[in-house]
Amino acid sequence: MTGGDLESYLREQIPLTVAMDVRVLTSDSTMLALTAPLAPNRNHLQTAFGGSLHALATLSGYGLLWRQLDDPSAHIVIRESHIRYDSPVTGDLCAVCRTPAAPELERFRSDFARKGKARLELESTIESGGKVAVTFRGVFVAVR
Amino acid sequence: MTGGDLESYLREQIPLTVAMDVRVLTSDSTMLALTAPLAPNRNHLQTAFGGSLHALATLSGYGLLWRQLDDPSAHIVIRESHIRYDSPVTGDLCAVCRTPAAPELERFRSDFARKGKARLELESTIESGGKVAVTFRGVFVAVR
Repeated sequence: MTGGDLESYLREQIPLTVAMDVRVLTSDSTMLALTAPLAPNRNHLQTAFGGSLHALATLSGYGLLWRQLDDPSAHIVIRESHIRYDSPVTGDLCAVCRTPAAPELERFRSDFARKGKARLELESTIESGGKVAVTFRGVFVAVR
Repeated sequence: MTGGDLESYLREQIPLTVAMDVRVLTSDSTMLALTAPLAPNRNHLQTAFGGSLHALATLSGYGLLWRQLDDPSAHIVIRESHIRYDSPVTGDLCAVCRTPAAPELERFRSDFARKGKARLELESTIESGGKVAVTFRGVFVAVR
């Protein structure tokens, strides 16, 4: 799945991504980075709404797993997440989910192949003004 | 702030609530319940998107605190949250945030009056098919 394919898939399958104006910035073997402009995602303080930040981070995890698993029979869901907002995001939003280490990814893939079910914890961060403003950790589960 | 006032305030201040079509269902001394239809908030599995569920739960916490504090000089922000998705939400979304016990609320109000800063943890739940499907806990901070 290319970055363009992922962007189209998100927009078709999850209508909120259209309202948020989510775009794929970088999609390579090391990471998935998704962006969204501030205007449709602002809050009452003219900074990014916590719900939009969480949604973008969640989408970066989904996207990374869809791309890594690349199996149309796999259903990926999120089981739980924790998010910490250390400072406000004052400009456009960009969530970066880094590809987990190879052994962890291999375990996820082999669990899925063997048992039709696998779980993986992913971290996604959002920076503002050159430092990490938001840290998200989500547990994702793939089921056949 | 009445339920209607809160609905207007959300729509003006947080544009994503318009796309999500968030409405105030119940606003009384015991709780704040916000709803949103499934269609604009669905995911790739035709159930509620985890990002929308988190956003609605976050908004129910904000709304409850705005109403409880009722002080235009107060800025309320969310510091961190944890959300657990136990089962999919297959119909319209409804997040219920219950008013904390009186002593806890009193401590929050007196901290804010005395120090111009106060924090409070709130729980919000979302049911589907008659049982709790999603449990959200968020730490909110009010600053002057």
